[in-house]
Amino acid sequence: MVNTATMEWITPAVQALLALALEEDLGRGDVTSETIFEHDETVREGRIQAKAELTLAGTALVEAVFARVDPRVLVRVLKADGQRLRPKDVAIELEGPVRSLLAGERTALNFLQRLSGVATQTRSFVDAIAGTKATIVDTRKTLPGWRHLDKRAVVAGGGRNHRVDLGSGILIKDNHVAAAGGVRIAVERAQTRAPHGLRVEVEVTTLAELDEALAARAEIILLDNMSPAQVKDAVARIAGRARVEISGGVTLDTVRAYAEAGADLISVGALTHSAPAVDLSLEL
Amino acid sequence: MVNTATMEWITPAVQALLALALEEDLGRGDVTSETIFEHDETVREGRIQAKAELTLAGTALVEAVFARVDPRVLVRVLKADGQRLRPKDVAIELEGPVRSLLAGERTALNFLQRLSGVATQTRSFVDAIAGTKATIVDTRKTLPGWRHLDKRAVVAGGGRNHRVDLGSGILIKDNHVAAAGGVRIAVERAQTRAPHGLRVEVEVTTLAELDEALAARAEIILLDNMSPAQVKDAVARIAGRARVEISGGVTLDTVRAYAEAGADLISVGALTHSAPAVDLSLEL
Amino acid sequence: MVNTATMEWITPAVQALLALALEEDLGRGDVTSETIFEHDETVREGRIQAKAELTLAGTALVEAVFARVDPRVLVRVLKADGQRLRPKDVAIELEGPVRSLLAGERTALNFLQRLSGVATQTRSFVDAIAGTKATIVDTRKTLPGWRHLDKRAVVAGGGRNHRVDLGSGILIKDNHVAAAGGVRIAVERAQTRAPHGLRVEVEVTTLAELDEALAARAEIILLDNMSPAQVKDAVARIAGRARVEISGGVTLDTVRAYAEAGADLISVGALTHSAPAVDLSLEL
Amino acid sequence: MVNTATMEWITPAVQALLALALEEDLGRGDVTSETIFEHDETVREGRIQAKAELTLAGTALVEAVFARVDPRVLVRVLKADGQRLRPKDVAIELEGPVRSLLAGERTALNFLQRLSGVATQTRSFVDAIAGTKATIVDTRKTLPGWRHLDKRAVVAGGGRNHRVDLGSGILIKDNHVAAAGGVRIAVERAQTRAPHGLRVEVEVTTLAELDEALAARAEIILLDNMSPAQVKDAVARIAGRARVEISGGVTLDTVRAYAEAGADLISVGALTHSAPAVDLSLEL
Amino acid sequence: MVNTATMEWITPAVQALLALALEEDLGRGDVTSETIFEHDETVREGRIQAKAELTLAGTALVEAVFARVDPRVLVRVLKADGQRLRPKDVAIELEGPVRSLLAGERTALNFLQRLSGVATQTRSFVDAIAGTKATIVDTRKTLPGWRHLDKRAVVAGGGRNHRVDLGSGILIKDNHVAAAGGVRIAVERAQTRAPHGLRVEVEVTTLAELDEALAARAEIILLDNMSPAQVKDAVARIAGRARVEISGGVTLDTVRAYAEAGADLISVGALTHSAPAVDLSLEL
Amino acid sequence: MVNTATMEWITPAVQALLALALEEDLGRGDVTSETIFEHDETVREGRIQAKAELTLAGTALVEAVFARVDPRVLVRVLKADGQRLRPKDVAIELEGPVRSLLAGERTALNFLQRLSGVATQTRSFVDAIAGTKATIVDTRKTLPGWRHLDKRAVVAGGGRNHRVDLGSGILIKDNHVAAAGGVRIAVERAQTRAPHGLRVEVEVTTLAELDEALAARAEIILLDNMSPAQVKDAVARIAGRARVEISGGVTLDTVRAYAEAGADLISVGALTHSAPAVDLSLEL
Repeated sequence: MVNTATMEWITPAVQALLALALEEDLGRGDVTSETIFEHDETVREGRIQAKAELTLAGTALVEAVFARVDPRVLVRVLKADGQRLRPKDVAIELEGPVRSLLAGERTALNFLQRLSGVATQTRSFVDAIAGTKATIVDTRKTLPGWRHLDKRAVVAGGGRNHRVDLGSGILIKDNHVAAAGGVRIAVERAQTRAPHGLRVEVEVTTLAELDEALAARAEIILLDNMSPAQVKDAVARIAGRARVEISGGVTLDTVRAYAEAGADLISVGALTHSAPAVDLSLEL
Repeated sequence: MVNTATMEWITPAVQALLALALEEDLGRGDVTSETIFEHDETVREGRIQAKAELTLAGTALVEAVFARVDPRVLVRVLKADGQRLRPKDVAIELEGPVRSLLAGERTALNFLQRLSGVATQTRSFVDAIAGTKATIVDTRKTLPGWRHLDKRAVVAGGGRNHRVDLGSGILIKDNHVAAAGGVRIAVERAQTRAPHGLRVEVEVTTLAELDEALAARAEIILLDNMSPAQVKDAVARIAGRARVEISGGVTLDTVRAYAEAGADLISVGALTHSAPAVDLSLEL
Repeated sequence: MVNTATMEWITPAVQALLALALEEDLGRGDVTSETIFEHDETVREGRIQAKAELTLAGTALVEAVFARVDPRVLVRVLKADGQRLRPKDVAIELEGPVRSLLAGERTALNFLQRLSGVATQTRSFVDAIAGTKATIVDTRKTLPGWRHLDKRAVVAGGGRNHRVDLGSGILIKDNHVAAAGGVRIAVERAQTRAPHGLRVEVEVTTLAELDEALAARAEIILLDNMSPAQVKDAVARIAGRARVEISGGVTLDTVRAYAEAGADLISVGALTHSAPAVDLSLEL
Repeated sequence: MVNTATMEWITPAVQALLALALEEDLGRGDVTSETIFEHDETVREGRIQAKAELTLAGTALVEAVFARVDPRVLVRVLKADGQRLRPKDVAIELEGPVRSLLAGERTALNFLQRLSGVATQTRSFVDAIAGTKATIVDTRKTLPGWRHLDKRAVVAGGGRNHRVDLGSGILIKDNHVAAAGGVRIAVERAQTRAPHGLRVEVEVTTLAELDEALAARAEIILLDNMSPAQVKDAVARIAGRARVEISGGVTLDTVRAYAEAGADLISVGALTHSAPAVDLSLEL
Repeated sequence: MVNTATMEWITPAVQALLALALEEDLGRGDVTSETIFEHDETVREGRIQAKAELTLAGTALVEAVFARVDPRVLVRVLKADGQRLRPKDVAIELEGPVRSLLAGERTALNFLQRLSGVATQTRSFVDAIAGTKATIVDTRKTLPGWRHLDKRAVVAGGGRNHRVDLGSGILIKDNHVAAAGGVRIAVERAQTRAPHGLRVEVEVTTLAELDEALAARAEIILLDNMSPAQVKDAVARIAGRARVEISGGVTLDTVRAYAEAGADLISVGALTHSAPAVDLSLEL
Repeated sequence: MVNTATMEWITPAVQALLALALEEDLGRGDVTSETIFEHDETVREGRIQAKAELTLAGTALVEAVFARVDPRVLVRVLKADGQRLRPKDVAIELEGPVRSLLAGERTALNFLQRLSGVATQTRSFVDAIAGTKATIVDTRKTLPGWRHLDKRAVVAGGGRNHRVDLGSGILIKDNHVAAAGGVRIAVERAQTRAPHGLRVEVEVTTLAELDEALAARAEIILLDNMSPAQVKDAVARIAGRARVEISGGVTLDTVRAYAEAGADLISVGALTHSAPAVDLSLEL
């Protein structure tokens, strides 16, 4: 039941989120089931299946939900995170007391539909730039409390993770630049003082700032809210001296143009802040 | 700083979610700010403003985030939850140490953009049925860990809340009916055994089941996945003997037809499971 | 070891209470046992048995205590919650390391004696109204931290649960009426605005208020601190238009008179706020 | 607002219990107040007053409850823990938003009624032995999760505390004696190995065991389930070589006889396991 | 896997510390292993072995760490707490997925090296006084959050525990004496009011205070910062009427002199506040 | 009272550690003070002062301890973290109820003595390499539960932080190399797959491996357990193509030789795993 996928998804913080999630739905019991069912030990089978095309993510959460609701429920994961499902594909089979299946159903599906939604959204961006050298990365625009899960779902969808939190990456934004007094001084300070294992990334908005950044040996340049044409020019000027990240309002319609303009990394907040849930249901 | 809005939004469970949210982003500090800023006490002002039309929700979370990040940050809420904002409208003014503003910015916005997204989505459904007697209600398809917040955002958007959890409402679904042996027996059991303060709601899929439900004195009838025409027929048959709830794949395009067909309540999972974030930003 | 009873009793909040309970007794170890016993692995058997007549409740807590103290302890539950025990009846058999039995003994018994006390108290009220149509229900006068457990124990004793918390039922009391400006307006507001799955209950103190309540379609009328004769009159006036709940100083001596006066529900705070512990002991 | 009483009562573990208590009642909000009240900021005054004779305990919990529910509520404690109240005596005055008063009322009273119940029960035992040299002490038969609070309430009622937990006192009971192979060896081991700051107490059931205990230099002798006459004989034999504790089924009717038989300490489980709540109410 | 050692070490508070420890190292995953390893299920064996002479303590923590990181990891404890190890002695064998071994390695070793460091330091003090009647005891100068673990490690090293916390022992220090108005009154108050299971210990700094303490029947006398010669005089004056504890700057060089001067107990803060980690490593 | 230092030190995880620390010492109250002091409100002043030369760190913890013990205690921090103190220098002045000062004293000092111990140890290493280009950095060999605090103390002592956890840095060690099949393939995988903001560091043990690492564009080379002479050779071969980190048994005697051999970074586990507490005391 424990496997490496579980370990990677279910951190202590995720356990805390699971506790909140089950408390908020089940903390006062399930009055309907308690009222309706005479015999509480009836065992049933159930199948979680896709009702639309989607990329699966978060199966470990279904395991974790039922492990908390009722360890007697058997959870057989048939499809791996990252797999593409078509309508009627069965992702997970369940077997256990009917009251336990009903008790955990909604929370398990809520996790799975959200995380598969993120993976599916990510997959569509990744597919849109297939064949280019660019990589789709996420942002810190994740759901509060869900950082770790959202980032795993992005990976399941074929994307890559930007920095996990404010402590694990140097990203000097316009506000930092303004407060520090310029791109050059900000980058130099970071190169001198930041933890040695972190590369220095800086956001630039003009060619002059870009030159400052390169002169101060920034290792990654973030071009925010530029057009593909502007990106192309900037990439040419950078000439391999730094990696190039693009951000700001990238959509499925525009993402390929940015990739073809030479970006190494394209960060997309919508992967996590606006992914619609995908349709998955539990059939008993 | 404490007000009734705060009390209503910031329950102990929400405090726990806040703790997770700040830990996941700030638990290892903010290496960029620590690296860049010489003087750590510089005070700045900031404004959270709309960049699109939206209905605001979750301002208490912005207060709560900064109360945890740095109580010295002043948070002035200029617009109330539920208000409609237009681009450039300022919702909240902030004043405090620049490092603290930057430290709390992303988490505060992540909360506000999500919750205003739910409110905005809800508002569009509510507006679509204006003038009918129907009410838009939410479901249990909320984000795990966010039940309370999502439901408050629905109210801010003009919607109403369905049951909060499995312990606070009787809703007999098809699975319960099948396991109990019929609509009639399921409703009768609920009328006899359920907590006396709860009305009995039952899902029916045929007219025969509808008749059973009414005979057993169900107080609310849930019509799932019916067309507006079918709803109209069912409403006529019910003839005021029970309230009528509609659910299942209701969209902005179809919601008015359901309302006009005579539904009292229309529940929409997408209010919470697929609300895109709205665009709000912090300008320093 | 896991069964449906366990699931129903041991919610996450109860797990938190268990953690507090064991920490407060065992958090610093057991200096006596550590000092006295040479060989710490000696296995013993023990029996938890009644020393007086009682109705059992809370056996799942005994399982949960020993699962935390030492999972090697086998707990065999011989009597179900709700069963009546006579002196010397054995409720539970235990087998495990003697130090572990002694370590968990007091906490397990403290849970079981309290919860069986509540069940026994409830049973005596339920028995007192046997043959009437009335139902004994609990109140929110439970031990702080014990809401869920106390309410389960009431059910084990044959009672029924009133609303679980302030979020799962509408009960308009005299203070609400006064602040709202009258029974009628308060009930009307509730009928319009409250979650649709909740019935509206209102406390009335005069016949005039009773008439207002009925006119506003209150579904449950709470008659507080009335004599049985007054209740009888009120029931006649209500004439089946609403359910009738009685509360206020009901004792074992008076409860049957209230039931015979026509009450549907009799709520008794003493079920949970003043239930004496029953006598159960662990014999090794 | 913070005072020494608060510090003594509100430990971190009590904070955790408070969190559970408020979550279980208020975690889903207060649907009645939200539905009824138009204006949510109306300020009211309230008084918590006795409705029967009682000894007060736990006022710090009322402060702590409202500090969590709404810090705007002013709590003025007029009577100190340990004071005797007569009907209509006002213990505490409150002032704050009516919705907040109603939200915290039940939890605050549940704490206060329980703890004052323990104090009142203790006070009656203490009064019953007035003039003797004996002391009333509690046991570990406290409510799980309430150890600290129950023990404080005993002190408020004029009693004294036995050991707080299994880690803070040596009490060798019959089971220990049996497993160790005799009173003498058990006491000797304790004298050699136990933490040096702890006195050694041992339970004896025969005069032979009593002699063994004294020979091994037990500092406290526990006489369990003996009659007052037997106690008198044992006390004479001990002749000041050890303190004498009595336990086992001591009631208000018999306690004085035990005290007059020469006991130093009389431990009474019922102080905490069977104290009925006392009647206190909040009048707005 | 569960055994009595586990129970004694892994209290609920230690579980909370373990949660913090794993969150702080693994909460964001292990980017290196995730990046490097293609196949994530490769099983490896590992051995935790001594690289210097040491006394082992804390093996239960290694079990507890891997039980949380990955329950598939087998942990075979070959040496018991308290055993002396020589370089290359293998204390523990591990077997499990290589990624899990690497994930738990550092936290497990950090616990084991610290706790064995405390045991080793304690062992050296205990050995230094071999043959005398004195006992080495610890203090409350433990690492915050580590009280229970540090005290267990002292026992593993052959020492004994002083009071566990401020609630489980009476120790009247100079500040208490000054505030109370003298040794005599302070000791008398303690003898009258303190829990009866606790002996009264008092710190004295002069012979006059010593006489007061004895007159008031102090059971343990703490001699702080005296020379061995002064201790010898005091011991003679006490003449068996109380136990004698020595504290204050005792080192490995001076400890034997204090023991030979007649101390019963020698408390050493350095056992826990300044124990260097011992060298243990995990070889895969 | 809140300042930037507080924000940087007292993360949510540190709050959890503080809760454990106070619970373990004060959770059962302070029986000595409660027994001795008649008047519990006496206010006293106290001074925390150095009793030896030391570098101060962790003053925010003293504030945080007393904020939890009793918010009435005023804490005036006179010396900043990182300052060098001489014997009798006063670091912090306190003023508050004497019982509260005594209650928090030990926990506050235990934090301060440990953290100042780490800072003092770090300072001695930093001073030893003054004038070279090398930097002293810490490791993950911190006390479990203390990662954040230990790392802050290193900074206070003039050192710099290595990666905070397994999620915020790529460090390919010998075990990774072995499992991956060589330095080259391991580094290449990391350059391709790791988060783009992280530099790639690899441990090498031979010149052949060093060449592989450079060929694969490793950005930091870790030379483990080499002599200063070997380091010098390696640095020459690297020729500025990567930063050079030294680790393994570096002591105060050898550290300068390593710095002069050309290391950029010298990591020292003893900064945190074996720092003796420094002597600081509270004088009332």
